Amino acid sequence: MTRIAIDAMGGDHAPHEIVAGAVWAAQEYGVALELVGKQDRIEQELDKISHEGFYSDCGKAGKQYRIKIDTSKLDIKITHASEVIEMGEAPGQAIRKKKKSSIVLAVDAVAQGSSAALVAAGSTGAAMASSLFGLGRIPGIDRPAIAVTLPTVKKPIVIIDGGANSNCTPEMLHQFAIMGATFSKNVLGIEHPRIGVLNIGEEAGKGNELAQATYKLLEEQHGKLNFVGNIEGKEIFLSVCDVVVCDGFVGNVALKVTEGTSQMLFRMLKQEFKADLLGKIIGLLAKPFMKRIYRKINYEEFGGALLLGVKGITVISHGRSKAYAIKNAVRVAKHAVETGVNEKIAKFYEE
Amino acid sequence: MTRIAIDAMGGDHAPHEIVAGAVWAAQEYGVALELVGKQDRIEQELDKISHEGFYSDCGKAGKQYRIKIDTSKLDIKITHASEVIEMGEAPGQAIRKKKKSSIVLAVDAVAQGSSAALVAAGSTGAAMASSLFGLGRIPGIDRPAIAVTLPTVKKPIVIIDGGANSNCTPEMLHQFAIMGATFSKNVLGIEHPRIGVLNIGEEAGKGNELAQATYKLLEEQHGKLNFVGNIEGKEIFLSVCDVVVCDGFVGNVALKVTEGTSQMLFRMLKQEFKADLLGKIIGLLAKPFMKRIYRKINYEEFGGALLLGVKGITVISHGRSKAYAIKNAVRVAKHAVETGVNEKIAKFYEE
Repeated sequence: MTRIAIDAMGGDHAPHEIVAGAVWAAQEYGVALELVGKQDRIEQELDKISHEGFYSDCGKAGKQYRIKIDTSKLDIKITHASEVIEMGEAPGQAIRKKKKSSIVLAVDAVAQGSSAALVAAGSTGAAMASSLFGLGRIPGIDRPAIAVTLPTVKKPIVIIDGGANSNCTPEMLHQFAIMGATFSKNVLGIEHPRIGVLNIGEEAGKGNELAQATYKLLEEQHGKLNFVGNIEGKEIFLSVCDVVVCDGFVGNVALKVTEGTSQMLFRMLKQEFKADLLGKIIGLLAKPFMKRIYRKINYEEFGGALLLGVKGITVISHGRSKAYAIKNAVRVAKHAVETGVNEKIAKFYEE
Repeated sequence: MTRIAIDAMGGDHAPHEIVAGAVWAAQEYGVALELVGKQDRIEQELDKISHEGFYSDCGKAGKQYRIKIDTSKLDIKITHASEVIEMGEAPGQAIRKKKKSSIVLAVDAVAQGSSAALVAAGSTGAAMASSLFGLGRIPGIDRPAIAVTLPTVKKPIVIIDGGANSNCTPEMLHQFAIMGATFSKNVLGIEHPRIGVLNIGEEAGKGNELAQATYKLLEEQHGKLNFVGNIEGKEIFLSVCDVVVCDGFVGNVALKVTEGTSQMLFRMLKQEFKADLLGKIIGLLAKPFMKRIYRKINYEEFGGALLLGVKGITVISHGRSKAYAIKNAVRVAKHAVETGVNEKIAKFYEE
């Protein structure tokens, strides 16, 4: 049985929602757990889930769930961690100083082989830094990157880098392309994934120096990668490519603008429906349809993003994750283990 | 009467929709026109508008308009231009080679003072290059930038730079902040506009080198500008600031992602409504509400973006603009002339 390590102390709703989501996943997906964090707090949560049951409103999905599971029947290991890295701390410093923190020990669990992957909803910087130092880089990869899966009208796409590296070189973006394509093929099941460079125009000469140089580099590698050229921001959701390559600054802005735009539109629509009585009635009727869309584009469904390029699997979840999102993050971790995405990235560079 | 020069040959629907939109604006806003382009083609369009009337479906707004206006009663001057710069041409080269092109002569009209501002829906690069060389920079400004006005749940915000400069320095972003604030105050009427730097986190140390250095520079200038710190992509629409400062690459990606996200959501919602008969009925009822939102966020309502930093007013419209968008672009141009936004930017640097 695949064992997944969970940083039980990381995230806005730790440890209660994190532990509940992990247990829920253990039952639903048949995985073993390694819960890393303050032992007494974790035991307390497990006890509650086993006896009283745990209620989660699962954030944006707008559903209420009751999680009541006999945790004694699941394969759950607790690894005590006396420290926690807080959101504001400088990641590099924090992981060196707090060697007994839950995120460092969760990474250790994967490095030592007691777990096959880890899920972390705390500080993204700390999860990246500890994964980089604890697991090491895949030979050929300079910097790990975050691969974020997004829904589109047709099939899901991958944006890489979603925010790990603010300052990038063309060589790094080339590596992101290789990692993104490997992910798309093996985890999302897309044959010959089409790679696009996020740019402000279609022509080769468009964009900033980084985008121009990356275009050239990918064009030269055309035999090995299915490079389809530049894609613009408005095309991300039109399925014109399967992997969107960009630096972590631009990628993170793009992801957050997507989130912000959706929120604004739903809010505007609600306001519009409130204008008069007829609107209120129609709004009420339309609500379930809007909710279905909201659920489709909701980060909670995707659970988390994969940190690619390290020798091990780290799933980075939203800091606001509740049980439902964590459950899905464990699914992502399990899937990544089964598909061996890291081994396949390593293989690309061996050949 | 304020005279606005129009590049009648620029844009996907030139000259028919451009001329119709300009005439419509002349009547609605009481401006005089200088239509720059092939004389016979322009005369033909004016004749049609005066006699048969011109039908425009006004793109996304989804409305049909009939424009039938006696153009002989309006103050319309035609300036013949024998050449046109096409969308694919390299801007710098094209404006040097095609000195008799409609965009170059429209800029000339403003430089010579026969018109007070110009509206251009053709190649953005050519409009920028010809404005830069034909009008010159405002002293103190290194590079002109595009100020794009966007709707939010509350009041509109400005994103600067919307795509003029892909490679920027912190000094340039500082200048964009000054120009954006001047625009926000004078054109949008926002007192003490709050300036935010588009970044991937709130803390001062976040982001790429450019964003970090810009943060420092703006912090030092705190007395002169109302700098409120970093803002994230998802906050753009939350009215946490009035001016969003970023390089033209990131700005353009952000704008196009906004466009792409809206399109996807509306498409998803339509699909969802189509699922069954009840959905179809509810969808039909909800349609007017969705249309109202669509109109609110539609670029056609904003007409165009201002190129700030040159000694003259250039309004850059979407290449897909139809008559309705052009009409609104003329309104933006007129408003910019009346508020003297350029003079106020120049004054900031004189003080």
